[in-house]
Amino acid sequence: MFPMNPVRGASSTAEPIVPFVARRRVEFRDTDAAGIAHFSTFFVWMESAEHELLRQAGVPLVEVVTEPVHGAAGKDDEPPGTYSWPRVSAACDYKSAVRFNDELDIAVGLDSIGRSSVTWTFRFEQAGRWIAQGRVVAVRCLLRPGLAPAAVLIPSSVQQRLEPYRIAARGDPEG
Amino acid sequence: MFPMNPVRGASSTAEPIVPFVARRRVEFRDTDAAGIAHFSTFFVWMESAEHELLRQAGVPLVEVVTEPVHGAAGKDDEPPGTYSWPRVSAACDYKSAVRFNDELDIAVGLDSIGRSSVTWTFRFEQAGRWIAQGRVVAVRCLLRPGLAPAAVLIPSSVQQRLEPYRIAARGDPEG
Amino acid sequence: MFPMNPVRGASSTAEPIVPFVARRRVEFRDTDAAGIAHFSTFFVWMESAEHELLRQAGVPLVEVVTEPVHGAAGKDDEPPGTYSWPRVSAACDYKSAVRFNDELDIAVGLDSIGRSSVTWTFRFEQAGRWIAQGRVVAVRCLLRPGLAPAAVLIPSSVQQRLEPYRIAARGDPEG
Amino acid sequence: MFPMNPVRGASSTAEPIVPFVARRRVEFRDTDAAGIAHFSTFFVWMESAEHELLRQAGVPLVEVVTEPVHGAAGKDDEPPGTYSWPRVSAACDYKSAVRFNDELDIAVGLDSIGRSSVTWTFRFEQAGRWIAQGRVVAVRCLLRPGLAPAAVLIPSSVQQRLEPYRIAARGDPEG
Repeated sequence: MFPMNPVRGASSTAEPIVPFVARRRVEFRDTDAAGIAHFSTFFVWMESAEHELLRQAGVPLVEVVTEPVHGAAGKDDEPPGTYSWPRVSAACDYKSAVRFNDELDIAVGLDSIGRSSVTWTFRFEQAGRWIAQGRVVAVRCLLRPGLAPAAVLIPSSVQQRLEPYRIAARGDPEG
Repeated sequence: MFPMNPVRGASSTAEPIVPFVARRRVEFRDTDAAGIAHFSTFFVWMESAEHELLRQAGVPLVEVVTEPVHGAAGKDDEPPGTYSWPRVSAACDYKSAVRFNDELDIAVGLDSIGRSSVTWTFRFEQAGRWIAQGRVVAVRCLLRPGLAPAAVLIPSSVQQRLEPYRIAARGDPEG
Repeated sequence: MFPMNPVRGASSTAEPIVPFVARRRVEFRDTDAAGIAHFSTFFVWMESAEHELLRQAGVPLVEVVTEPVHGAAGKDDEPPGTYSWPRVSAACDYKSAVRFNDELDIAVGLDSIGRSSVTWTFRFEQAGRWIAQGRVVAVRCLLRPGLAPAAVLIPSSVQQRLEPYRIAARGDPEG
Repeated sequence: MFPMNPVRGASSTAEPIVPFVARRRVEFRDTDAAGIAHFSTFFVWMESAEHELLRQAGVPLVEVVTEPVHGAAGKDDEPPGTYSWPRVSAACDYKSAVRFNDELDIAVGLDSIGRSSVTWTFRFEQAGRWIAQGRVVAVRCLLRPGLAPAAVLIPSSVQQRLEPYRIAARGDPEG
């Protein structure tokens, strides 16, 4: 489903890899007076599909830490507060319009993972028709009342759970 | 406000040009459980600011044509239907979070205009703080029930009304 | 699930009747900065559950009639235009808050049906906990560009398809 | 604007009292594929108008208390947490549809105030045309992570600030 190169080794198969597909129906509130799904709705759908993936992967979207968490050997200590994944970048290209009641397949894959950020790619199809493609960069942050969100390291346990959703073997020099 | 080069001639001034600024307050429904404005809201704000600009420019966002329009010399004929500006691309980079009740300045400028498409750029500030920047490409389309949106030429009268909002003198080879 | 009297005859059973149950998960965009699902979201959920019911019943939510429809014996003629069910009244009482990721059961029933209007009742539960209850009155209307929505008779075929979802045998003197 | 009895004394005037009017334009995202403002949007508008009123009245919508607040003589002590006004009831009757770009006047008044709850009434007009009317009951609550919202007393200072927005002298036996 992705226009990607899934080759990961000499013995690779030609089969495209679709790490995760969420299904969504266009609801009436998703449409606008032009009769089609509003362009902003695709960003809500992307987030929602990402969350489905995170649920499947066992990674909580929002963690409220009331007591300090002490990792083994003092690592992964996390101060109290709310941890979440605010977006630092989001983009979508629209190929075709969808209307009320249309059913969408939303393929999600992990494009890259850095020290604190994750880049997701998305492809929307409806009955085999290419509808849209998107890309979202989320950063793991500590959110505290009255303070700006602060980027924090992605725990290694989270990294391991996300790895299976990677769509291609690519380096990511980001932090 | 824009990181742009407003120089258009030898007699240019060093003053930055801000073609249009819309103001918006973060409403409660714009926020999410992370306590900040949801990232998808910025796309709604961008569209809304673009519409304010179009209103000021005298360009209708949605035109319902029930009878064929015949332009002078047979040009700009438009068949019956609904004309609007579906988006083909939208992107936003987020620099800083905003919360309920924060007031935003949303600067909008015309980045480029082609035969059927318009590219808008946006910059969000809150009390002088850089919040986000975005970019939206809209295409003038004819929308008819049961048919896919069809790109149509931007009438010259519309082009002329949008020209003053251009943020820099740049060529645009697009169609 | 409904606090209703399902008795329809002497041989009635004591089992409560739940005509239709939609399931929904609270998505992140459904929440607000108070950390709970925004109260306006319940109205979107109600509409969405009603639409699921209509789909199951085989009643289209939006009908675009481009040519006049002639019913048998000249009845149910419908002029061209868009037919839909605008709401004339909506209400919701909230008993308990729900948060991101909570799963909701939304029971929908037909409270009454008149000549042009339908009254739906809703009950929201989460893991057996009573969350909210609502009521929506929708009127079948003809929508034409530039004109106010005009109430039209509910075709008898539609009435028959909705009848099984009635939650109690009650008269409805409404038109 | 309200169908109310503003008489508060012998010297009362016959002029209707409109405690507060918010103005809003129907934005494109507020509409749906029926071409009119979605019925759920009116609830967002009601909340937003209520918040404008609260701002004018000097009553914060959300208060994050990190240290216990000690009132004079030990009264109005409020434990740490987030204080807000979740809705327990919301209703709207729709008289007429509005479309993209229509401008709305939203009159808001305080119908009644109890020990912990406030009832607001709303009337929507567009160019003098009656569009809708609504009613919302909000309860002052303490919100703490992982706990259900708990109703708390409305501080007397808040009561005094809301009093001027009362639309009629009525008792309210509520708690």
